[in-house]
Amino acid sequence: MGRIKLTIEYDGSEYVGWQKQQNGRSIQEEIEICLEKLFNSKIKIYVSGRTDAGVHAFGQIAHFDLKKSHIETKKISNALNYLLKKSKNKIIILKSEKVSGIFHSRFSVKKKIYLYKILNRSTPSFILENRVWHFPRSLNTGKMQEASHVLIGKKDFNAFRSINCQAKTSIRSLEAIKIKKNKDNIEIRVFGKSFLHNQVRIMIGTLVNVGIGKWDDKKVFEILKSKDRTKAGPTAPSCGLYLEKVTY
Amino acid sequence: MGRIKLTIEYDGSEYVGWQKQQNGRSIQEEIEICLEKLFNSKIKIYVSGRTDAGVHAFGQIAHFDLKKSHIETKKISNALNYLLKKSKNKIIILKSEKVSGIFHSRFSVKKKIYLYKILNRSTPSFILENRVWHFPRSLNTGKMQEASHVLIGKKDFNAFRSINCQAKTSIRSLEAIKIKKNKDNIEIRVFGKSFLHNQVRIMIGTLVNVGIGKWDDKKVFEILKSKDRTKAGPTAPSCGLYLEKVTY
Repeated sequence: MGRIKLTIEYDGSEYVGWQKQQNGRSIQEEIEICLEKLFNSKIKIYVSGRTDAGVHAFGQIAHFDLKKSHIETKKISNALNYLLKKSKNKIIILKSEKVSGIFHSRFSVKKKIYLYKILNRSTPSFILENRVWHFPRSLNTGKMQEASHVLIGKKDFNAFRSINCQAKTSIRSLEAIKIKKNKDNIEIRVFGKSFLHNQVRIMIGTLVNVGIGKWDDKKVFEILKSKDRTKAGPTAPSCGLYLEKVTY
Repeated sequence: MGRIKLTIEYDGSEYVGWQKQQNGRSIQEEIEICLEKLFNSKIKIYVSGRTDAGVHAFGQIAHFDLKKSHIETKKISNALNYLLKKSKNKIIILKSEKVSGIFHSRFSVKKKIYLYKILNRSTPSFILENRVWHFPRSLNTGKMQEASHVLIGKKDFNAFRSINCQAKTSIRSLEAIKIKKNKDNIEIRVFGKSFLHNQVRIMIGTLVNVGIGKWDDKKVFEILKSKDRTKAGPTAPSCGLYLEKVTY
């Protein structure tokens, strides 16, 4: 039959993350369970990149190989959505499509866009619960945008990765960071081919320290140069982060 | 002491509506319970207008009178938020402020803005669950905007009110309807001084019938002229509706 690409949206707040784990439901496992129900055989799925517990996706990409199928490829999404809903999952397959055998959800990635949402006002919001980082102190997004320029380009992001990050090299190319403010809502989009573990969230935590006036762009430059995780800002909460798009 | 104005945000999906009812938690009752705890006396609150079960608010307005207060007026919101959270409510008091004794949350209204959110794509969304009307058929928002003009001005909206509506007259002045589309997300804002029961939701249901090509602006004109509820479109679901702002 061939290789199938899935475009996936999920509410990450209900899961331990993309990857299978002992301590709760994972997105990968829930989809694999439904694929097994659908095709009566164990199927392993490959993802563009894992997301952590609480992180959402508007356009996560995964692929799997199928020996034979009793349903049309584009209808696999509907069948999976039926099964996912039945098992009370918060996952939607937006699209299922046939791709060439040389396509790989992880190795063929050209660009990823992460979106980080901040609610910047004194009171929290129940309408946006688990959907944004509620940050009560006023943020200067102009200063944040200015400081973000320090991070653009091919750099050693060792200061901006989790101490548990297992990537061999900490050098990554960051294409752009775009910050938009609309009343109390701040949206930060981060563009790049690949990211280190927690890189986006640590960059956000660092830029937020700039936004409150604690740090400036020179300080962010020093942090980058230090290659020392303890120098950078806190890891921003997972609930504000969305994997928005992956292009190939 | 005087009159206090509250600006209130809530996730309506957890409530039977603004007004006290036998069959579940209402926003009014939950706030009144917290006010009683705070001030040790029964306090009745008056609202700009009730919202139905499932309808949200970003800026509902209510007022109440206080004989004496042991806390600063602007800190009443914090105290109420603490109590509301403790009783597991999805209500946030954004602001508490002192107003003149001639201010009335309902009778002094100058304008109300309702926001209606539609997710217009084939698949539903768990990230936006209870926050939008998921409408799978493609909508032509240009045609909807065109047909909306028929409803603007001082008109008899009898065809656009619930059969349970108890207002003495069905004549209302509709100031504007503005429709914005951003990818799959449609936002419709409705501006007016006051509305009949279910008026916004029936207008949305009617415009959606235009959006799918079933009706056009001439048909909407006929419906308006008929003054007959059975001629208009369905009442759009409450989960997509937000009372966005009330001005005085």
